[in-house]
Amino acid sequence: MDSIFTKIIKGEIPCYKVDENDRFIAFLDINPKAEGHTLVIPKKQIDRIWDLDDELYHALWDYAKEIAAKIENAIACDRVGMWVEGLEVPHAHVHLVPLPSNGFYGLKKPEKTDDAYMQSVAQKISK
Amino acid sequence: MDSIFTKIIKGEIPCYKVDENDRFIAFLDINPKAEGHTLVIPKKQIDRIWDLDDELYHALWDYAKEIAAKIENAIACDRVGMWVEGLEVPHAHVHLVPLPSNGFYGLKKPEKTDDAYMQSVAQKISK
Repeated sequence: MDSIFTKIIKGEIPCYKVDENDRFIAFLDINPKAEGHTLVIPKKQIDRIWDLDDELYHALWDYAKEIAAKIENAIACDRVGMWVEGLEVPHAHVHLVPLPSNGFYGLKKPEKTDDAYMQSVAQKISK
Repeated sequence: MDSIFTKIIKGEIPCYKVDENDRFIAFLDINPKAEGHTLVIPKKQIDRIWDLDDELYHALWDYAKEIAAKIENAIACDRVGMWVEGLEVPHAHVHLVPLPSNGFYGLKKPEKTDDAYMQSVAQKISK
């Protein structure tokens, strides 16, 4: 069955896209823990990140590094943090988030996450 | 200056070691968020994970995958989750933690983390 993310990849569900290539896509989390909270996923639908084959696994981490650099260029932060939990959607995804100097505890949800705001954040990162 | 982790690698500070090879070491977090909470680090002291060269970066993720499998074999969980924050110690480190089915929110700190307990957990994972 197609995951929500596969539906996004197919264009059946919209997303605030930050970047895309033939194998990966990066888009904003619609429930951002902070401005610039981005999900990075392989287009191939595989539940657990640990089950990606070595080549795709390395390529995913390379892509996450690229997107982290884009986020860092766009959003003031100490550095970009990441996490992988993977229980909500059975499609491997890496969370990337700009961290303040006190880390995850200092994350602040954006006050509003309306369409205009989300579009502006996605555009800022994708530049 | 040597990070706390470099001091651990040099044996100047003790740790509950789970695994080690020529380039990486895995040991228990001394403030575990849950039983089996493990840190995976490169022996080379580099602050931000994003600044590892490509080869070492790939090798670190390969090693994290290996250690995640060991944790999953030793500790009952839905899957192993991870995060990288990296603000407390200026030496890149990946947190690995066995997740219950409700994820990070369901993590339970061990009731005690005395020496005997920590040793038994490290031994269980390292097998």
